[in-house]
Amino acid sequence: MNRVFFEEPATFSGSNNGDRPAGLRDAYPSYASKRRALEIQLVDYFEQRGCSLVSASAIESLDTFWRAKTSLSVDDAYQILMAPGKLAVLRPEMTPSIARMAAPVLQQHPQPLYWCYAERVYRKPGSVSSWSELAVDAVESTQVGVEWMGVSEAADADLLLLCHEALQQLSVQGARTVVSHARLAVLFLNAAGISEDVIAKSLQQLVRGDYVGFQELMMTYHPSVSLLTCLRQLNPYDSESLERQLERCGQAVQKNTELYQVWNTVVSIAKQITELGRQQEYTFDFTLTRNIAYYTGILFETFAPGVGAPIALGGRYDELLKQYGADAPAVGFVLELERLLNVVASTTNRGGESLC
Amino acid sequence: MNRVFFEEPATFSGSNNGDRPAGLRDAYPSYASKRRALEIQLVDYFEQRGCSLVSASAIESLDTFWRAKTSLSVDDAYQILMAPGKLAVLRPEMTPSIARMAAPVLQQHPQPLYWCYAERVYRKPGSVSSWSELAVDAVESTQVGVEWMGVSEAADADLLLLCHEALQQLSVQGARTVVSHARLAVLFLNAAGISEDVIAKSLQQLVRGDYVGFQELMMTYHPSVSLLTCLRQLNPYDSESLERQLERCGQAVQKNTELYQVWNTVVSIAKQITELGRQQEYTFDFTLTRNIAYYTGILFETFAPGVGAPIALGGRYDELLKQYGADAPAVGFVLELERLLNVVASTTNRGGESLC
Repeated sequence: MNRVFFEEPATFSGSNNGDRPAGLRDAYPSYASKRRALEIQLVDYFEQRGCSLVSASAIESLDTFWRAKTSLSVDDAYQILMAPGKLAVLRPEMTPSIARMAAPVLQQHPQPLYWCYAERVYRKPGSVSSWSELAVDAVESTQVGVEWMGVSEAADADLLLLCHEALQQLSVQGARTVVSHARLAVLFLNAAGISEDVIAKSLQQLVRGDYVGFQELMMTYHPSVSLLTCLRQLNPYDSESLERQLERCGQAVQKNTELYQVWNTVVSIAKQITELGRQQEYTFDFTLTRNIAYYTGILFETFAPGVGAPIALGGRYDELLKQYGADAPAVGFVLELERLLNVVASTTNRGGESLC
Repeated sequence: MNRVFFEEPATFSGSNNGDRPAGLRDAYPSYASKRRALEIQLVDYFEQRGCSLVSASAIESLDTFWRAKTSLSVDDAYQILMAPGKLAVLRPEMTPSIARMAAPVLQQHPQPLYWCYAERVYRKPGSVSSWSELAVDAVESTQVGVEWMGVSEAADADLLLLCHEALQQLSVQGARTVVSHARLAVLFLNAAGISEDVIAKSLQQLVRGDYVGFQELMMTYHPSVSLLTCLRQLNPYDSESLERQLERCGQAVQKNTELYQVWNTVVSIAKQITELGRQQEYTFDFTLTRNIAYYTGILFETFAPGVGAPIALGGRYDELLKQYGADAPAVGFVLELERLLNVVASTTNRGGESLC
């Protein structure tokens, strides 16, 4: 038997493929084995780094999905009628399922859980969350993720580093992570005198990347100084920058406020990164906002040259596990395999052969 | 970081688990990594044996599903509304998807394809096909499969052997395969004078394992001899047994009929098995019938001590690829991972550690 390699036949590729529902792709030989080798390398690496593999069914209850309060509406996920009157969804993301699985374990044994997974997720093309995934309007995508649960903010820098270390294992060159915090823009704008309902509206503009709209809205309330510029000049590598930007807005804020607490968190992360001499890999940008309501702390997106959408995304979700019965903080990230395949130019698989 | 292993919490296991739709199971650490190691071992092995990995989306078009003419009705599969008026299914089995993918490749390059896959399939509990999978009334199961397409009956014995060789790699002890042929019972009963409509009815009894009902029905038409016994005594290891059983029924059949053609096929498989001295691993039983209409040649089920349902199933489907545009014969089988995990008692994973 000779091994035969075939790429997807031209007549059957793309969304015009007669029989295939739009957005579904088949993985033909070579592509399928590259993706699999990548998945195995990543899971092996996360297991070496102390994570335990778990797996959850692709079918998730509506209840689990709703409790997570994601930005996705039930209409963004594919719905399945499990039995008369019983709807479920094809999971559009993994974190709620992992949190649901972890909650009873954390209740019984309140000690940190370091979990990883390699699973497929399913999203309707054009759903809110796929805005940030424009690179491929894919219905099905493969994710390898890490979730550290029962783990405080002190671990955030380690998680950020783990993500890049995993990419280094794959010989991905030039990965850059943009780090933000779910609360910082809100607290800063509030300290600058913007009311909460205006802030809510302005954050939606940031989620959509509508910086012009954001700028205009802010000018209405705070004409003397560009709050967008102030936000962008908040730089945790320079711990004094918060105070400077507040002064620029004509504000003085008590050091014991929530704003300073959050600031200290990101400054501490910046310090750890600096100590390792890896500042060039991690940029802070507090205009980065994500429309997933469960993020409570840091959130980040990782990019690599040549891919227009993040190859990794993550953040802290300290309130999510409560929804499933355990009051525990947590942080995690996910790597998008189909995007990663665009940048894994030359690395080796387990047998020592070239992956690509 | 210490690695922490947890089995599924008792309060969250089983079908009474509050939030989980019935039949869905989470895989907690240790179980998840065992299943994954098994999957990797099998895919690695099939790749070594010349198969190329492919992957298909879990969402399959209704059209692909219908064309396969499986025994499953659309009500046995979970349906997904992809867009207004556009229904798809969560695939209940892999073969139709693989055949759909392979057909255009075979049309362009008419040479054999040796493919393998590792995927999840989804079936409603209580659907027809889950009758033979009673061990676990699982909605989601993991399959590693092999499909040889553009490959004639001459390869059947090799495929049967490959299945056992894969199990040997996993150190599965005592695997036994029951081999049948989609046409033999029909042709034999027909030669014995049973009419086609009665045969169709009687085969449904065999599918359900209702041997008493089959016996009674046959006695009505052929009271002098037990056709069930005759069928069971057809033994390709003894090539004269067909003639003997026909004589017992008072029939003489021309050697150039379809019955003898099919018989020669299974006798040839038996000879190859005998030459390797492996007769004790493969039993022929032509009362084994499966309710999947696309099987045209051999069909088989593999069992291992301690598991009540087949750990592997397969067969020949020479008419299926036509449904997707390529007239090519094909044969394949699938290993059921969750069942296999019950018998993989002690084997090693890639790192040399014990799997269980």
